[in-house]
Amino acid sequence: MEMKTKEYSSALLREHYFEMRHPSGLPVYVFPKKLTTTYAILSTRYGAMDTSFRASDGNFITVPDGVAHFLEHKLFENPDGSDSFAKFSVWGADANAYTTANRTAYLFSCTEHFSEALEELLTFVTTPYFTPETVKKEQGIIAEEIRMYDDSPWDRCFQQLMEAMYAECGIRKNICGTERSIGEITDRLLYDCYRIFYQPCNMALVVCGDVTPEEVLAVCDRVLPQETIRLPIERAPFTEPDTVSRRRIEARMQVAKPLFTLGFKDPILPADPLARSRRYVAMNLLDEAIFSRAGALYSALFEEGLLTTSYSYSYSNTDRCAFHTVSGETDDPDAVEARIAAYLEQLVKTGIDADEIERARRVLYADELQSYDSTEEIANELLSYLFDGADLFGQPALIEDITADEVNALLPMLTRADLRCLSVIRPQEEPEKEEN
Amino acid sequence: MEMKTKEYSSALLREHYFEMRHPSGLPVYVFPKKLTTTYAILSTRYGAMDTSFRASDGNFITVPDGVAHFLEHKLFENPDGSDSFAKFSVWGADANAYTTANRTAYLFSCTEHFSEALEELLTFVTTPYFTPETVKKEQGIIAEEIRMYDDSPWDRCFQQLMEAMYAECGIRKNICGTERSIGEITDRLLYDCYRIFYQPCNMALVVCGDVTPEEVLAVCDRVLPQETIRLPIERAPFTEPDTVSRRRIEARMQVAKPLFTLGFKDPILPADPLARSRRYVAMNLLDEAIFSRAGALYSALFEEGLLTTSYSYSYSNTDRCAFHTVSGETDDPDAVEARIAAYLEQLVKTGIDADEIERARRVLYADELQSYDSTEEIANELLSYLFDGADLFGQPALIEDITADEVNALLPMLTRADLRCLSVIRPQEEPEKEEN
Repeated sequence: MEMKTKEYSSALLREHYFEMRHPSGLPVYVFPKKLTTTYAILSTRYGAMDTSFRASDGNFITVPDGVAHFLEHKLFENPDGSDSFAKFSVWGADANAYTTANRTAYLFSCTEHFSEALEELLTFVTTPYFTPETVKKEQGIIAEEIRMYDDSPWDRCFQQLMEAMYAECGIRKNICGTERSIGEITDRLLYDCYRIFYQPCNMALVVCGDVTPEEVLAVCDRVLPQETIRLPIERAPFTEPDTVSRRRIEARMQVAKPLFTLGFKDPILPADPLARSRRYVAMNLLDEAIFSRAGALYSALFEEGLLTTSYSYSYSNTDRCAFHTVSGETDDPDAVEARIAAYLEQLVKTGIDADEIERARRVLYADELQSYDSTEEIANELLSYLFDGADLFGQPALIEDITADEVNALLPMLTRADLRCLSVIRPQEEPEKEEN
Repeated sequence: MEMKTKEYSSALLREHYFEMRHPSGLPVYVFPKKLTTTYAILSTRYGAMDTSFRASDGNFITVPDGVAHFLEHKLFENPDGSDSFAKFSVWGADANAYTTANRTAYLFSCTEHFSEALEELLTFVTTPYFTPETVKKEQGIIAEEIRMYDDSPWDRCFQQLMEAMYAECGIRKNICGTERSIGEITDRLLYDCYRIFYQPCNMALVVCGDVTPEEVLAVCDRVLPQETIRLPIERAPFTEPDTVSRRRIEARMQVAKPLFTLGFKDPILPADPLARSRRYVAMNLLDEAIFSRAGALYSALFEEGLLTTSYSYSYSNTDRCAFHTVSGETDDPDAVEARIAAYLEQLVKTGIDADEIERARRVLYADELQSYDSTEEIANELLSYLFDGADLFGQPALIEDITADEVNALLPMLTRADLRCLSVIRPQEEPEKEEN
């Protein structure tokens, strides 16, 4: 067996990791790190967005929403009727899985019996087993999960924001699908999607902990084939308008106080992963400088009683969509939007205070370093960057490199009303006016 | 049943909680908060430090180290042989317990079946059951736990720091005790300590979540007696020197790189809880301004390769002891201490940059607000403040009030060599020199 091992290292971080490709086609990454736990994650570039693609007959097909997540559930079930979750606990390993818009991931963390647990992880993910009966049973379980998310106000608030902001992009889909869409899923369809998206060459294994590349490859050799077969993977193209579909969306649920998520659509999606990574870091500097709880905007709105302590913000971007969100609890979501808009208008005129950008830079830099304290964070970050084609170890330099001018140049976009959308969840009954 | 309910509220935080005293003598606190989980914690003012106290015969006695932690383990076991941990999982509740230097706490979080879980919590903590056989079995289990902590380099590094800094104070004791000390524990001794320290008047129940004071009190009424009996509790006084016992302490273990914890003993222990609370906040401002990962000191040492990303710092104070710690991984612990000492000397001359103190203030303020996002954090914070006699809702005002002069005045103490102690864990074998 001949195999090339490539080593990536960061002199600054004094960390390194290895990249290999198993003969099955699976890329394998091992990041040595002596911490309490070892963490392994096996992931495929296949998520809730991937519902239209070229099938093996050469035609584009569209499958029901929620297939990627459905597959995630079903893979834990084995041909002998056993459930892989239970097996992990025997080794004291803690297994889990998740589906996002663009990936599905299976993982465990453990303090001992690493090889046994990794063998089980590779085995169950590479052993699809679906029957009409097991699919039917799962439809009931996932319908329940869908209802659970529907009952969660924050999930609903985010979900309806995506539906309002995006016209075509798959980010507007509910990750679990709908009760109707999952009703259309069959065992045959699961096998078809599995065969296309679970090819080793479309996946990656990342391990972070007190292990060697040799130990990891030895387990791969026990489970995976020694030959590579590749089916072409081609997702259907789509056209998404730059601006938001709707400017405002609202629902009523059982909440004590109205919730809001304010979205800022970012229409600029650099095709080059490194440019995208740079934009990601610059936007994070911008967000940290403007929206941080330690900043003037949040402080003012909090002290006036317009925001509570329930508050968060983020920016995310891929090659298919990008957006900021700011979420909170407030008696008056429209007033919060107006205040944020006015604050941003003013900032465009004055520019962001240079000290604030420096503060943001130091916070991001410290957060970046801190993430190396956890095998879980390292493995998930490494996976994100490699799936996105960007460079994990390039982050500290990006944080240092980006100038205040570059950050300020991103600001005017946040003031464009046609890129902004307010999603609100209001109480069923308006609460009675409280006396102060 | 007559019961006074006192309400505490914060106009700024727009939060409130209720204080009641159950007829059994148990103080009960209910903090209404609509989040996903409800969290309950029942705690007693009894921890690893409390090994010398006045017994019922009027004489001071000293019990073996580790009794509080031993009791914590044994209380989960019931007279019918069942284990309370298992019962909680039936209701989907997640139970746990911990012992610190000065308290023992039993807790659970749940999303439903709150009343059933609370009834179990109150029942098992108020039902001591120990026999010579169950004590003997537990001695083996806890000996294993002691060995586990002994094998953890960070735990050992902290433990030996406390032993080096303190001559008399119980903070120097290992929370679990030693294999020898727990060998001296008997069922009779456990009953004696239980009777003194687990009186409802020495305990508190704190609940945070979507519950009412009435629901909580109804459960208390089902489990607890309707009368109060009080035995006097008196801990033996002790005298601790102001300065550290030893300036340096070192051990060798299986680590890749040396670890250190640098301790700064704080000899000033205000008797008044509010003064102590103010000192706590001022010291936290000082630490955040000096030691933060986002600050100049850490950045410089990191970029020079003297520190890795494994790094932390904290300050803690009670009426019995107070200290700062700064911990990290480094090839040269003495160089790190020297660099920190030189940096502090310089700061005393120039004063801390006013902007840095403002940044620290905003970080602490934001952290304080953020803690209200979690029922677990709220309940544990509320418990800490009430056991310490301080005011949970007073924190934001303290963070705002403390002046830069007040923070700077605390700085010279950090430069006193006789208050400083360096604890080091070095690799068994010195690692071979790496080439750069």
